[in-house]
Formats: sequence, structure tokens, C-alpha cells
Amino acid sequence: MADSKWDVVCIGNAIVDVLAHAEDAFLAKHGMAKDSMMLIDADRAETLYEAIGPAVQQSGGSAANTAAGIASLGGTAAYIGKVADDQLGDIFAHDLKAGGIHFGTPRLVGGEPTARSFILITPDGHRTMNTYLGACVELTPDDVSADVVGGGQVLYLEGYLWDKPAAKEAFLKAARLAHHAGRKVALTLSDSFCVERHHQSFVDLVRDHVDILFANEAEIKTLYRTSSFEDAAEEVRKLGKTGALTRSENGSIVFDGDHWHTIPPMPTRVVDTTGAGDLYASGFLYGVTHDLGIERSGHLAAICAAEVISHVGPRPQASLAALLKEIVA
Amino acid sequence: MADSKWDVVCIGNAIVDVLAHAEDAFLAKHGMAKDSMMLIDADRAETLYEAIGPAVQQSGGSAANTAAGIASLGGTAAYIGKVADDQLGDIFAHDLKAGGIHFGTPRLVGGEPTARSFILITPDGHRTMNTYLGACVELTPDDVSADVVGGGQVLYLEGYLWDKPAAKEAFLKAARLAHHAGRKVALTLSDSFCVERHHQSFVDLVRDHVDILFANEAEIKTLYRTSSFEDAAEEVRKLGKTGALTRSENGSIVFDGDHWHTIPPMPTRVVDTTGAGDLYASGFLYGVTHDLGIERSGHLAAICAAEVISHVGPRPQASLAALLKEIVA
Repeated sequence: MADSKWDVVCIGNAIVDVLAHAEDAFLAKHGMAKDSMMLIDADRAETLYEAIGPAVQQSGGSAANTAAGIASLGGTAAYIGKVADDQLGDIFAHDLKAGGIHFGTPRLVGGEPTARSFILITPDGHRTMNTYLGACVELTPDDVSADVVGGGQVLYLEGYLWDKPAAKEAFLKAARLAHHAGRKVALTLSDSFCVERHHQSFVDLVRDHVDILFANEAEIKTLYRTSSFEDAAEEVRKLGKTGALTRSENGSIVFDGDHWHTIPPMPTRVVDTTGAGDLYASGFLYGVTHDLGIERSGHLAAICAAEVISHVGPRPQASLAALLKEIVA
Repeated sequence: MADSKWDVVCIGNAIVDVLAHAEDAFLAKHGMAKDSMMLIDADRAETLYEAIGPAVQQSGGSAANTAAGIASLGGTAAYIGKVADDQLGDIFAHDLKAGGIHFGTPRLVGGEPTARSFILITPDGHRTMNTYLGACVELTPDDVSADVVGGGQVLYLEGYLWDKPAAKEAFLKAARLAHHAGRKVALTLSDSFCVERHHQSFVDLVRDHVDILFANEAEIKTLYRTSSFEDAAEEVRKLGKTGALTRSENGSIVFDGDHWHTIPPMPTRVVDTTGAGDLYASGFLYGVTHDLGIERSGHLAAICAAEVISHVGPRPQASLAALLKEIVA
């Protein structure tokens, strides 16, 4: 394999999070499915923003959060995603660059504004997301170059991209470029509703294009139409994939061929689950690109997830590199 | 006194905070005076933003934070301040309205963008602010109406307004309107450098226009050119003012005529001092507008300050109304 410029190249919807606290009754009143991500249009975004309480704004976006986590661990990452030429776009770009992450995707000028996700945190610490995609919709295959994709040991893609045709094409182009360059392709299924919306094409995608699969319990069961987590996991393993499947407070399992490990969760106080899966992926991908082996990579993933759910917001607050020392000591 | 629509009408620089962690060496390298507020221009804002780490964005502005605290206590507030017609302005306006605070100041169209303050939080939890005033500079006397100012039991003004001539005029107009309507005028000195910049006019202002004065130890000593906190406090008392003077970890003193009380600080872990003085003012002003007396108002002020320094960001996260029950029980 050729030398790589980055450990991981991440592609995803480039989003600024608008985080507010809300009661469960608020979710019910506004027809939200708790713990899920719903896509909303500009009108709904406006209505919802008027209804929610005071908020904090922070860069988000699933794959971008993963890139931020890898950088915080001391790894290297590049990011491809579309923001507009506006103040939220400035915020998003600043936070990536401040983390040392390469970000060269041209901004959208004269179109929709930068995407935002209204994230409601219920008293139990769970997050429910309402995403207005805005400028993200204009991510196209032209934004994906062989130079950048070929420069990463692993290409990491989020299932959310599958919601828009041009982004889906960009996604497939990136996967082909990565494999052409001898790189690995990793995917997160992102959301069980997202898996449901694109069921068969996700089944095909995983089989044909993915080397490393991330999913939570609901997502993997939805993908393989089963009520058994173990059966769903076995489907992935039989395909010869590396898998990292999370079960929230029950930890996760990681596997690679015949190597199969149960990873206990790290005990922590859950303040806000936003970014849990994203930072889990940071830890695992850092591990596999630094030859830690899948078991230690799984433990590192759990540590990173625990850090991000211990505070409000989807990006790490503590230096993950310091936490990494616990696992490699 | 006529009925009031609001407990407090607050006027100040309308700012979105950009909060990031930094080491003390970073402050030194960039020539910042720790714990102070420095005004910066657009170029410096850009340079500084490129230098700081990943950030979170949250509505700020000293007097607006105070209004948010009063609303969180269950009180009523109106706010006057200038934001632009941009995304940061949307954030600022949303957070006030979501808190139930009246905010009707017309936005600035076609001028400078909404103000932002780059706030660096050092490992000891202290905050150092670098403020680009942007649209705030366009706050003028036309933005101050007798209707709004006369509608509050107390008018609350921040010393920061004194930095720009038009805002200063708006400030003086508001003070006159408030007294004409039989209302009280409260002022915070805001920052010791701000007091230094406008020394004599602040001395005159306090003497001639202010009923309730908020200041911290550095500010009040700078105002009265003394190294003795007690002497400085006595200067305020001799003028017949109500005073609330804070000494960070040493608590505060409150006085009104011959009534003089020492208020111990509430024990808390200091995470970020941003908003400490602002929320102290929320508690004290809520108290004096709800006939709690100055001693209990001082205790409430200390409770509100303790809440806001226990987390990152200048606005309360907990319901202050719940904390209020401790003091009125």
C-alpha cells in the first residue's frame, strides 16, 4: 500500500448543531421519533427553531465529528463535505481547521445556507435530531478527488449521504477511488430510519463496497430484517467484513474474520448522547490505522464514546490523546 | 410608581460568544490581558479566530446575559441592543425570545455583521474576552423608546456601552427616560479597563444618573483611584447609592443606606467564569424587584453566579427558578 497522507478521509453531511434541552412531551407534541434523525425542510426548520428553548451552536455532522475525534487522538484526517459561504459555514470550517483536519471542499455560493441540525436533549441524556440539509444537498462527485480519497488509509462514509442522489454518487465515486488506490472503505449505517429508507441498496452496498462496518443494534437489525442482534452480526461476519456493532449501555462487539470480541461500555454519566457513535468510530478507526488490533481498537472506541456523552455537544472536550495513553500503556 | 410591564429593561452590546479553551501562554503570545475585555477590529478578529482552537457558539452580551438570568428566575425582562440581519443575529434573537424576553430593536441591514466575542477559557476557569463590536456600534438613541424604558421597574445598563459615542447617547437617553418615568437606573461598570478608558465620565455618571451600582473589586478601585476595596465601597455608599460589589472567590458586599451585608460566595467548581458578574446582577435585580430585601437579593445573586461558572457559557443551564426556591423557602 502506498504511503498515506492521512489516517482517515471522512465524507459526510457538513452540519452545525443547534443543541437545546427539551422534555419528552415536546418531542411527542412535535411528532419526533426519539433517538432518531429526521430530515426537515426550511419551513419546518423555522417553525421548530421558534419552538425550542435557548440553544448552543457547535460544529457537528457525523463523519466530521469522527474526523475531529481522530485528530483529538493525535491522528490525521481529511474531510469532504459542503457548507455555504455564510457564518455557519465559517464556524464549521474553523473548527475542522483548528483541529488540524484538511478541509478543501469548495463552499456553496448563492444557494441554500449551511445545514443545521436541531438536536433536542431529553432529561435522560438522549438526543433526537431534526436536520435541515441546506447546502449539503449540493455535494456532488466533483467534490470528490482521487488525490484526497487516495491519500487516506481508510475512507469513512456516513449512511446519511444516501438520502440525496448527488451525494450518493459522490459516495460511490469515493468508494471506487479508495479501492482503486488500495485503501479500505468504512461505512456507518447512521440511523435505523435511514437504513429503512434505503434498505436493499444498503444491503448491496455493504456486500459490494464496504470493508469495515459500523452500526448500532437498531440499524443492523433493520438492515438484516431480524429481531436478533446476534443473527444480524453473523450476517456481517459471514460476508468477511470487519464489524464494530454498538449496543449503547450494553457495550459493543468487534470482529474481523474469526476474531470476535465483546467490549464492555466505559462507565460514565450520560449528559448528551450526541456524537456517541461518531466518536466510537473515531476510536476504532484510529486503532485499526495504528495497528492496535481490533480488541484494543474497540476499547479505545468505547473510551472516546464515553468522553463525548459525558458533556453537551458532539465533539470531544478532553484531549483524547491523553485518554489514549490508558489503552496503549 | 406606575405599573411596569417588566421587572428589568436591559440595554447592552448584543454579542454572540465564541468560547474556546486556551493555555495562559496563548494569551501572553497574543498580547491579551487576562480576565479583561479587549475591543478588537475586524482584521484582528479574523487573525484571532484562525489562531484559536475548536469553539462553541452561544448568545452572550453582558446585559443580555443578565436579562436571560432574570427570565430563568421567573422574572420578566426586555432587552435593547443591535444585531445584524445575519445568522449570528438569528441566534441572538432566538435565544432571547426563547427565554420570553421582549426584544424589538430593529436589526442592522447592510452594515457590519453581528458582534462576536472570542472568549478564551484558561485551565483555571478564568475567561479573557476579545470583542469585535460589529453591528453593536450602530445602536443609537433612536433604538431607545420611552415605551420600553418606562415599562421596566429598573433600567439596567452596561458600562461597555460607553465605548461608542452613539451607544453612550442611547445610554444617557435611556437613563433620563427611566428617571422621568419614576424608575430606577442600575449600572454595571463592566470591566476595569473600560473604567480606566472613561474614568472621569464614569465618576460623574455614577454620581448623577445611577441608583444601583454593580462592580467588581478591580473596577470599583479603578473608579475611585484607591487600592482599598473598603474605601472604594465607602465612596459609593456616601453617594447614597445601592451597591453590590463583588470580590470573586471572596464573595460580595451589598448595601443600601446604612444597611450593609457581607455575602459569602456559594461553593462551586469553577469551570468558566464567563457571565459570573452578569448572572450576579440577574439575582440581585430579581431580588430588589421582588421585595426580597438587599441581603436575600445578595444571596440569590451569589447562587446565580455560582450556577453560571459551573459550566461553559454565559447563560444559565439549570432553571434558576428552582434554585430561587432555596432562598425564599
